Amino acid sequence: MRIGVLGSGDVGRTLAAGFTGLGHEVMLGTRDPKKGPITAWVQSTGKGVSVGTFAEAAAFGDVLVLAVLGTAVEEVARLAGAKNCVGKPVIDATNPLDMSTMPPGLFTGTTDSLGERVQRLLPGAHVVKAFNTVGNPHMVKPDFPGGPPDMFICGDDDGAKATVTDLTKALGWNVIDLGGIEASRYLEPLAMVWITHYFRTRSGNHAFKLLRR
Amino acid sequence: MRIGVLGSGDVGRTLAAGFTGLGHEVMLGTRDPKKGPITAWVQSTGKGVSVGTFAEAAAFGDVLVLAVLGTAVEEVARLAGAKNCVGKPVIDATNPLDMSTMPPGLFTGTTDSLGERVQRLLPGAHVVKAFNTVGNPHMVKPDFPGGPPDMFICGDDDGAKATVTDLTKALGWNVIDLGGIEASRYLEPLAMVWITHYFRTRSGNHAFKLLRR
Repeated sequence: MRIGVLGSGDVGRTLAAGFTGLGHEVMLGTRDPKKGPITAWVQSTGKGVSVGTFAEAAAFGDVLVLAVLGTAVEEVARLAGAKNCVGKPVIDATNPLDMSTMPPGLFTGTTDSLGERVQRLLPGAHVVKAFNTVGNPHMVKPDFPGGPPDMFICGDDDGAKATVTDLTKALGWNVIDLGGIEASRYLEPLAMVWITHYFRTRSGNHAFKLLRR
Repeated sequence: MRIGVLGSGDVGRTLAAGFTGLGHEVMLGTRDPKKGPITAWVQSTGKGVSVGTFAEAAAFGDVLVLAVLGTAVEEVARLAGAKNCVGKPVIDATNPLDMSTMPPGLFTGTTDSLGERVQRLLPGAHVVKAFNTVGNPHMVKPDFPGGPPDMFICGDDDGAKATVTDLTKALGWNVIDLGGIEASRYLEPLAMVWITHYFRTRSGNHAFKLLRR
């Protein structure tokens, strides 16, 4: 499968490397594809990952991943081009973090979410919220006592969620589907539970599981 | 220990029975202490639990539990009397559920929470958010494969949190402290993750755990 990863930060690189490890072709979309650090990363960790503009990566992928700062979502969606995303599953790994305070807060309310905004920005795409509730060091092949942990996802298109579920399971997760994209209103605050525990313990070695019987 | 439970619904009754089971003295505060169903419940399940008004239960307890509908919090706090709560740990098990839709939504935003509102309504009390992220059938002695599950708590007073941690552990939980009461902004949406899964599966047999290593 061809996967276009929009965003070349830690999350984008981690998922790009994870997907190439599964045998997928990955293009990493970034603002300036010629940037030295990206080239260096591709030559070392990201072997097999190509690099392009946001628009090139969006056009390349059968499945897209949005992995940028919450504050950059609107601009990156515009640069990627809504028409390049039509009909495609878009994994939205972003969080609406307001970094003006530390620990950060959320810049959305409980009647809106960044997941819903991404869906409105890319109306023809099938947005699936996922990978927003764990830090990047444990996104690929998470290894915890009592695991595998659960990746909560949500989105409006069942076919896109099935594709994202397969990819997420292949990366080592169990998947729990919380319904339509509006459940992002709860999955984005869930990221804040993860982040708050990180700030209190200074350790990012945790992930959620929903115990069931 | 004397525990005053404000609220005689399923959550209040469950916690009241759980605390008497641990050997504590419990008074259940309710709007009308003479109400038939409460009397019947005390005679069967709630043996050893006394019943009083909200004010009587608040005055009775060394530790208080607030277990009412989110929309009733303001009135119940007024009826309980802020002066009866001064200096006491108050377990806030409420959620700001807007029941005008099903599944419900939240009537707070991401820059406020019901936990913070309860603390403002009872300024001399030491409010600790707890028991709001699991359904009542599993609040006492939760029994899950891979358990015990984690009870996330938050509050501004470390002494009150230590007391609530001891009580919560005695009921069979592991406890994770997320800091000040403002973390209610994330623990109340976490309840919605629990509730959303409930509505999708029609099963309330689930509870959160934070896998760690």
